[in-house]
Amino acid sequence: MIQWKNLDTLPSFAKLQALKGHVDLAQVMAGESGAQRVAEYALPMGGGLTYNYAAKTVDTEVLSALKELAEEAQLSEKYGVLLNGEVINTGEKRLVLHQLTRGQQGEAVVADGVDKRAFYVAQQEKANAFARSVQSGEITNESGEPFTTVVQIGIGGSDLGPRAMYLALENWAKANGCLRMNARFISNVDPDDAAAVLKSTDLPHALFVLVSKSGTTLETLTNETFVRNALKDAGLDPARHMVAVTSETSPIAKSSDYLAAFFMDDYIGGRYSSTSCVGGVILSLAFGPEIFTRFLNGAAEADKLATNPDPLHNAAMLDALIGVYERNVENWPATAILPYSQALSRFPAHLQQLDMESNGKSVNRFGEPVGYVTGPVIFGEPGTNGQHSFYQLLHQGTNIIPLQFMGFRRNQAGMDAEIQGSTSQKKLCANVAAQIMAFACGKKDENPNKSFAGGRPSSIIIGDQLTPEALGALLAHYENKVMFQGFLWNLNSFDQEGVQLGKVLAKRVLAHDTDGALRAYSDLFGI
Amino acid sequence: MIQWKNLDTLPSFAKLQALKGHVDLAQVMAGESGAQRVAEYALPMGGGLTYNYAAKTVDTEVLSALKELAEEAQLSEKYGVLLNGEVINTGEKRLVLHQLTRGQQGEAVVADGVDKRAFYVAQQEKANAFARSVQSGEITNESGEPFTTVVQIGIGGSDLGPRAMYLALENWAKANGCLRMNARFISNVDPDDAAAVLKSTDLPHALFVLVSKSGTTLETLTNETFVRNALKDAGLDPARHMVAVTSETSPIAKSSDYLAAFFMDDYIGGRYSSTSCVGGVILSLAFGPEIFTRFLNGAAEADKLATNPDPLHNAAMLDALIGVYERNVENWPATAILPYSQALSRFPAHLQQLDMESNGKSVNRFGEPVGYVTGPVIFGEPGTNGQHSFYQLLHQGTNIIPLQFMGFRRNQAGMDAEIQGSTSQKKLCANVAAQIMAFACGKKDENPNKSFAGGRPSSIIIGDQLTPEALGALLAHYENKVMFQGFLWNLNSFDQEGVQLGKVLAKRVLAHDTDGALRAYSDLFGI
Repeated sequence: MIQWKNLDTLPSFAKLQALKGHVDLAQVMAGESGAQRVAEYALPMGGGLTYNYAAKTVDTEVLSALKELAEEAQLSEKYGVLLNGEVINTGEKRLVLHQLTRGQQGEAVVADGVDKRAFYVAQQEKANAFARSVQSGEITNESGEPFTTVVQIGIGGSDLGPRAMYLALENWAKANGCLRMNARFISNVDPDDAAAVLKSTDLPHALFVLVSKSGTTLETLTNETFVRNALKDAGLDPARHMVAVTSETSPIAKSSDYLAAFFMDDYIGGRYSSTSCVGGVILSLAFGPEIFTRFLNGAAEADKLATNPDPLHNAAMLDALIGVYERNVENWPATAILPYSQALSRFPAHLQQLDMESNGKSVNRFGEPVGYVTGPVIFGEPGTNGQHSFYQLLHQGTNIIPLQFMGFRRNQAGMDAEIQGSTSQKKLCANVAAQIMAFACGKKDENPNKSFAGGRPSSIIIGDQLTPEALGALLAHYENKVMFQGFLWNLNSFDQEGVQLGKVLAKRVLAHDTDGALRAYSDLFGI
Repeated sequence: MIQWKNLDTLPSFAKLQALKGHVDLAQVMAGESGAQRVAEYALPMGGGLTYNYAAKTVDTEVLSALKELAEEAQLSEKYGVLLNGEVINTGEKRLVLHQLTRGQQGEAVVADGVDKRAFYVAQQEKANAFARSVQSGEITNESGEPFTTVVQIGIGGSDLGPRAMYLALENWAKANGCLRMNARFISNVDPDDAAAVLKSTDLPHALFVLVSKSGTTLETLTNETFVRNALKDAGLDPARHMVAVTSETSPIAKSSDYLAAFFMDDYIGGRYSSTSCVGGVILSLAFGPEIFTRFLNGAAEADKLATNPDPLHNAAMLDALIGVYERNVENWPATAILPYSQALSRFPAHLQQLDMESNGKSVNRFGEPVGYVTGPVIFGEPGTNGQHSFYQLLHQGTNIIPLQFMGFRRNQAGMDAEIQGSTSQKKLCANVAAQIMAFACGKKDENPNKSFAGGRPSSIIIGDQLTPEALGALLAHYENKVMFQGFLWNLNSFDQEGVQLGKVLAKRVLAHDTDGALRAYSDLFGI
């Protein structure tokens, strides 16, 4: 029997609070005991990745309390019922089925009269067939010429995840001879966004993917109009240049304005939709269906590992638990995402949405205010760039910010240069290893301005190379981490009512239905 | 007589602490009193921009305490001595002269036997002349063909600021017929960064700008080797394709490996260097010297406004004071930077460095630990994109995060689309106005999950259009804000000792001079 309880009602949470400041990180990471932690505190994540938490402020005692917390919070059971199709998104009364887009870890889920796994597979097969037809030259533009660029029009989850995934694999695909089409993205309602993309895109050979689950997202429809106007101005037929990704019930689902339509449904939240057709259409067009399938396989592998009820053998669950310890016991307000891979340049922005939109909430799943802090601020940039930027604060600032590093032994493009006795790739890896230790152990100096207190915890995700499988596993790891944290905080991680009020007020501004300060601000903008 | 005192020793700080929670933002922003605040709480920033702080938690009483604090902390006097060439960067024993690159607000500053204003002007004139020669076709590649792309090789301040500035004006320049060359950037030591840029760059017509003040930055020298190898492999002469921006004393200053060299010095910190040759060479090449001059003029205008000793007539000083009130009285841990302009997509990343590297410190300028928090976490993404991402947490999360909006009445590209009765530009502006009010006033709902508590403060910077002058003023505003906050916290905002330890340890890894956990991590990466 599942019980949805607030974090602060669980006995193990009190036990955990007594362990505040329990581990002296600088001490445990020093000497050979540190080396032993690096060897032992590691878990497989799928996709060839390993989650290493040696430099987190945990030891057997903290881990034991976290394991109790996982049991009391019924994390594994809750994931189980989610996989089996329970209405986990209670606010919107919806199932939560994004894991089904890449595999089936639980029982068959039938909703709206159909087997949902079969539905998602069928939609992706349709997308695959479409991608193959475009790539083979069967589907062409009005002059019979092939499409060479694919442009996604979407915002939020229809933009951030797919964009981050495309950028993560673009150079890998080039190096492996499977970059089929270049991809671009239009998202912001700022007309300068669409203008810049359109000016630098070869319109006659561009295929646009309009992504809106509801078919009513104002930014996306506005940008669609913008694009259609540009196509018409170029003497092209918009209906020959645009496909739709939407729900079957949306106003655009059956429109002849689109070359084809691919469907998702209300059980896939926007920020969890990269493995559905929202990511599947553009990524299959860009890289080919085989690569997208490999990406899905990596995600499915991570989903399966996340079903292990023991957090000491479940990387996503342990990552979630350590995060709650850092947030609710240590009271650290933010988490930095630091991939040592330029290909992951937009992955922190995707995680920012995934995490902050899922768990940035103040009421529990029953609408009751919670008496503890929930989701932290998530931010980050790739290393080594960040080292020359905000790392100063991370090392010597007055707040401790937990860190999540990522690194790969091999680069993607296979090009490198050797200077001063080492390659760029070795320098990159040496830097991330060095940073972990600098943060953990610090270093005393007689000049206090050059002293490092240490005690700043981090984890690292390590892989051989950022491949499609690794990327899929990385994506799913964080989706599952965020889900487990939502369970711990007793939140509904799958709605986003906090974005509504702004939309309502913006409509009022555009309708000139305002007074007071809202009218005054509108006047400043000449609206 | 200037006195450098810790924030918590100033009598007005105690007064300010008594004003915690003093203003009920939802209340003061409601009705006509809110409209009056929008009209009154506004200050010119230079470049045609206005700083509006109506939706901050201040009133006459808080403002009066902030004004006292400004006086007790001698903010204006300290800016004065900085402008006049005092050794403000005490740790490194250096003057702080970035304002001199764009104007002269104080007395003549003579250092190293030269008038520094004259020195910076001469270097920029040299860069201007060089840019004109490239643009006129006087300086060409080895085949006598013009250069069409300029690629900056640099990291940290030699990358983030110039890159953000280029992206901010790229579309404006296109629309105004003054985009002379496309610009690209290589920064990360990850070889995939350089590989991706080089693969998509027309090498025979590319001019590279190597930027390293010391001439020893490992990432930058590594990427230089990478680029030189690629040029040689393409049968090109690297010395015909590369210029240097460095200090006169650096090992690369007089090398014949470069077509030309432009100089900065130790008195311009990397994160403050966009208005020096670090930004000046690439931006003059990309947009023409006239546009770069307009950018400098905007910055100089903001610098001049910042000399006003009264914070109620000094936007940068007031912004700094309000930030300290939010950080040290209200204890809010982070600040979000939210430009409603796609052109400012990398401006938050620049501010992240500027702010967090300057003020993310735990000891004061005398090396004594401070007893209060200093620089906050800085993060952000352009609106309206962020609305569909992390705004959920900003509206309904358990922490209050102060917000800094930016918005412009007109777009840059001059293209737009009208749907549902309004243009994209109007929708963009309506959204930012709506968000300010949604955050400030919130909205009660009988469903607690749909309730918005409000009381979430923001400021907005408004301009007619993001022009070169506006961008210069925006850049200088934040540089001056960060400087004033450093004065308030009694920090040295101009060194960055916190980045050193990681460098030292990375060198040890590359030299295989490691043991314990550092060796274990290195082993995981196969180093």
